[in-house]
Amino acid sequence: MKPILENFAIVLNRPRFPENIGSAARAARNMGISNLIVVDPENPDKEKMHYLATRIGAELIESMKTYDTLREAVAEFNYVVGTTARTGGIRRAVKLPRGIAPYLARLSEKNRIALVFGSEDRGLTNDEIRLCHAIVTIPTTEYSSVNLAHAVMIICYELFMTEIPVNDAPVPKLADSRDIEAMYDHLKQILIEIDFIKDDNPDYWMMNIRRAFARTHLTSKDVASIRGICRQIEWRINRN
Amino acid sequence: MKPILENFAIVLNRPRFPENIGSAARAARNMGISNLIVVDPENPDKEKMHYLATRIGAELIESMKTYDTLREAVAEFNYVVGTTARTGGIRRAVKLPRGIAPYLARLSEKNRIALVFGSEDRGLTNDEIRLCHAIVTIPTTEYSSVNLAHAVMIICYELFMTEIPVNDAPVPKLADSRDIEAMYDHLKQILIEIDFIKDDNPDYWMMNIRRAFARTHLTSKDVASIRGICRQIEWRINRN
Repeated sequence: MKPILENFAIVLNRPRFPENIGSAARAARNMGISNLIVVDPENPDKEKMHYLATRIGAELIESMKTYDTLREAVAEFNYVVGTTARTGGIRRAVKLPRGIAPYLARLSEKNRIALVFGSEDRGLTNDEIRLCHAIVTIPTTEYSSVNLAHAVMIICYELFMTEIPVNDAPVPKLADSRDIEAMYDHLKQILIEIDFIKDDNPDYWMMNIRRAFARTHLTSKDVASIRGICRQIEWRINRN
Repeated sequence: MKPILENFAIVLNRPRFPENIGSAARAARNMGISNLIVVDPENPDKEKMHYLATRIGAELIESMKTYDTLREAVAEFNYVVGTTARTGGIRRAVKLPRGIAPYLARLSEKNRIALVFGSEDRGLTNDEIRLCHAIVTIPTTEYSSVNLAHAVMIICYELFMTEIPVNDAPVPKLADSRDIEAMYDHLKQILIEIDFIKDDNPDYWMMNIRRAFARTHLTSKDVASIRGICRQIEWRINRN
């Protein structure tokens, strides 16, 4: 499922603002995509692009290809994905970025894939959508439109995430029961001594404390810290 | 698992550029989050914020709260999530946005949650990270840093996605086998007539065509279109 990120290109169709081109370049590079194509940009001011691309996206701006029409721009790609905010009509079979990402990752093993984004104000026209083999839409509240560079970020992020295991947090090594019970005994003794819990039924009062600690998954280091605090309380009390 | 989005707030700590505040406001609103807090912004130019917030994020800029310190800003929140590009040290137990999102969605049922983002150039300091109950990092290639508003977008998007079924594409109603086989018969007859396949073993030659069509999941409407084309070819041939 590892996507071949070199086989993807971001295609910005008739973008209006060079800042968005720069910002899209940085976003794409963040997620490992290095090919940028623009079609008929309204203002090809490279300085403004670089300002938002930062050092991270600078190479994409330098190696960026420019075409006059979307048809030419996508000619050498095997699979063309269009993005749209509107749905319905010929845009009926829209997919979610998360839904299509694993399929694109798989396709990219042997195919070049163009990810096409329309202009800031009008998006892709129906004629441009017809050039696409699949259409995706970024879900939003009330169908509010997403900034061009943000849209690029989300699509690239979803592709990049196809190869990232989500729950690979290192499993903590917990303290063992003997250490934990010794800690509770120590704590109980202190809490009785400072009159926080009553001598007649201390285990009943300890239950809340046990519950709170049980939720935290104590490690050996945690237990050592708590016992250290207990010892210092004893020391301070006995100094009086 | 539906997140209570009203219980989330975006907290931008010492942001440098008002454009990023505006862009973050739009991104948050796209994903249904309406609370924006800024801590000690370097340049609180509302006009520049509004320019990038657009109409979509305008209300967040108007209702934005400003604090002098992060500690005050998060005081009334029950759970504070910090974002970082760096990992290691006290930032060891970092989580991925996708990994933590379902947990945050669940917490939000009864708790107010602050999503804290550091400044563009320095991120969150260790002291600021200590105020956080959880730390997340956005995965990137070569640990390249993500634009502030892009980071806000990804975190908000992951929360929003917790309530969106990813594969809810309508299941297509496919043509039945009888219609499909009648279509193949019709096609075969035409293809023989135009000498595209040989008369001696037409089913062998039809196999490639069957394979290609089988991959497309033909609907009744598709079958009707293909038969229409076949009929028109016959008509045109017979007119000669």
